[in-house]
Amino acid sequence: MDSTFDVLIRNGYVVAQEAVVDIAIDDGRIAAIRPEIAESGDTELDARGDLVSPGLVDAHVHLDMALSATGDRRPRNNERRTDRIDAIERTAAYFAETDGEEIEARVRDVAGRAVTNGVLHLRTHAYVDSEVGTDIVERVAAVREAFDDRLDVEIVAFPQGGIGRDEGSADALRAALDAGADLVGGLDPATLNGDRTGTIETWFDIATDGDADVDVHIHERGDTGTDTLRALAEATIDRGYEGRVTASHAYALADAATGLDGDSSGDDGGDRGGRGDRDDQLGDAMETFTAADLRFVTCYGSTPRGMPIRRVHDAGLVLAHGTDQVHDMWGAHGNLNAIEAMLVQSLKLDGYATNDGLACLWRLITTEGASLLGRAEDYGIEAGTPADLVVHDARSPQWAILERNDPRYVLKNGNVVAADGSLAGTRPSPSGRE
Amino acid sequence: MDSTFDVLIRNGYVVAQEAVVDIAIDDGRIAAIRPEIAESGDTELDARGDLVSPGLVDAHVHLDMALSATGDRRPRNNERRTDRIDAIERTAAYFAETDGEEIEARVRDVAGRAVTNGVLHLRTHAYVDSEVGTDIVERVAAVREAFDDRLDVEIVAFPQGGIGRDEGSADALRAALDAGADLVGGLDPATLNGDRTGTIETWFDIATDGDADVDVHIHERGDTGTDTLRALAEATIDRGYEGRVTASHAYALADAATGLDGDSSGDDGGDRGGRGDRDDQLGDAMETFTAADLRFVTCYGSTPRGMPIRRVHDAGLVLAHGTDQVHDMWGAHGNLNAIEAMLVQSLKLDGYATNDGLACLWRLITTEGASLLGRAEDYGIEAGTPADLVVHDARSPQWAILERNDPRYVLKNGNVVAADGSLAGTRPSPSGRE
Repeated sequence: MDSTFDVLIRNGYVVAQEAVVDIAIDDGRIAAIRPEIAESGDTELDARGDLVSPGLVDAHVHLDMALSATGDRRPRNNERRTDRIDAIERTAAYFAETDGEEIEARVRDVAGRAVTNGVLHLRTHAYVDSEVGTDIVERVAAVREAFDDRLDVEIVAFPQGGIGRDEGSADALRAALDAGADLVGGLDPATLNGDRTGTIETWFDIATDGDADVDVHIHERGDTGTDTLRALAEATIDRGYEGRVTASHAYALADAATGLDGDSSGDDGGDRGGRGDRDDQLGDAMETFTAADLRFVTCYGSTPRGMPIRRVHDAGLVLAHGTDQVHDMWGAHGNLNAIEAMLVQSLKLDGYATNDGLACLWRLITTEGASLLGRAEDYGIEAGTPADLVVHDARSPQWAILERNDPRYVLKNGNVVAADGSLAGTRPSPSGRE
Repeated sequence: MDSTFDVLIRNGYVVAQEAVVDIAIDDGRIAAIRPEIAESGDTELDARGDLVSPGLVDAHVHLDMALSATGDRRPRNNERRTDRIDAIERTAAYFAETDGEEIEARVRDVAGRAVTNGVLHLRTHAYVDSEVGTDIVERVAAVREAFDDRLDVEIVAFPQGGIGRDEGSADALRAALDAGADLVGGLDPATLNGDRTGTIETWFDIATDGDADVDVHIHERGDTGTDTLRALAEATIDRGYEGRVTASHAYALADAATGLDGDSSGDDGGDRGGRGDRDDQLGDAMETFTAADLRFVTCYGSTPRGMPIRRVHDAGLVLAHGTDQVHDMWGAHGNLNAIEAMLVQSLKLDGYATNDGLACLWRLITTEGASLLGRAEDYGIEAGTPADLVVHDARSPQWAILERNDPRYVLKNGNVVAADGSLAGTRPSPSGRE
């Protein structure tokens, strides 16, 4: 009798090999990759010549407030453009007033959607403040445990009210690192917190005490934003935290690259449009970012059109992608679908609709995401890496984005955890959603 | 025994009624709409409280060149931004060299995709020139006939090479009206054709001879584009063609609304970004457009960010939407999915992500499209109208766009023609696509 593998994926197109191959899986890891594998598999999946990719990465999402906009015919809190201060207050009220079980159920629901969409690694923010303390972090951590065989989850403790505005939130942030959070979060030190240097120092004090990485929202725009990013990079170097700090959103990168003039800090995402006549502001700052190995995440709902994605990658810096909202009170959009997000990016951003542009967008949700999460070594389709794989219903990364089909199979550690738009172990409803 | 209806849709949310109702269908038309219908239906479909809408409209697509970018790992002709003159030459070569059966098979394929996506009415352009004559129009007309119980198709004979550049194409255009085309097409009279007045006159000469409507591509930008739109409107009035002329794309509307300065005619779609300091140019021209009842279509892949959709609607003018490409040599995007297109628009355009913005985008693919196609009288969910209906997997138009789910059921003349992502009479493959 022939020897067998646990799983064999037949006829998968693998980009790194530029070839259609068979992929053998044993004990949750890739055991062999060859044009044709003679042995059989206990489970055999036919990729039909279509793309097989590593698991997709969503590097920035707020699972904890997912689905808070649903329930009505008209999405909640979507009657006008989001005002940040209003939204911060709404968020605090939501977490103070909503039953923890309900929040946990929503997180569980959308974690399943992520897996169904081929997302196998994600970093989520989880709310902390002086009122709810670490309750929300604990709810998200409970779902992480329930999904530990399907989805890798990093949790950022996120004091959204601002540690400069809500005094108790710094304590909650410290406590969160004991309650399951992996990273220290924060936002807008110069504007919302009103003290750039002091806020950044506090973030690093807490992070270094807990030996935790840092991932902070920097919405600040124009010169203010660039100054904040630079200050963050300098603090990173001072603290010996190179490669451990992420600036999420970092709209100012786009402003600096496109020469947007003026100091327009504190605005919500979106695009500021105009091109001023100042010189490119990005060059200088990039050296500091490089020295700090500062990492960046952009999110499709708010990526400015001029975000210099290629330039950041070309400089050797990590820039990944997150879907951010999942129908929540900050934005009614969001299906935890990394590929759908790249379809939007390809039609929204300047210069990413071509084949090379699409390849660049694909990196955002694969290799760049893996680097951001510190998984680069164990990521990719090669013998020995964990069998976290997606069999797509598309011929290539470009076609996966253009056609936006549901993955045919999603495998975590060699197990099929989702297929054709449904989680494994669940029956598709007639409508195809659970 | 109770009297019965042919079909009953139970528990459908209808926007016009702001209520969940039962919809009875007899002889292909809506027979009754009531909160609860006591009689039974030979077929009963449960909408579960989700949205039931009229069939979606795709007002501008090129079915004839659909899928011409497919077949390779890297989408064809997508290595760089489309150059119009190159693409015109590629298109001519494609139609001259590709087997007619193959073109027809592709048109048939994507017509099925349209139906699956809930699109029941569309206007397609079909290529004519001095070499292929009316061959392509005849192929598209053959598919129209094959789909006549599932999809309403209008055909625009489209002399893409330009009647001013390819002399025989004017004759082909005339012949096309006898070969199955309904409308006279064309493009860019001032730039590509090089003679604004003469080209417009020729279009109308051919149209009036055949009593056919007109739908022409106006890519021209800035002042050149505005002047062309105005000249088109004036000719419309001169010829007594009010309400029978469509300007597709009409990028200049956005340029005029945002005060883009300078004459930047002849460029490809996309967005020109900057806001000049000139006054709003749109006001004057709008009066002429209104007098002519000039109609407009915009397409998500190329809609400029500043397209004044609300303003055009508020002026009482028709502005509808088309998906334009279906993975073709002009653009690798395009899934003939009107809802997916609106998801992109909502994240790409300025000011359409809110609930009212989403409602406006929904009108583009429903009522505005019906008006453009002259179907306004027979469109909508009320007793007596044809039962061309979509049962969505979403609570409302806003949620349909945000969630981008496949429709649960698509009905044409009261028959279920597609369900859950598959055409009726076809079995879904394991991957959910045919």
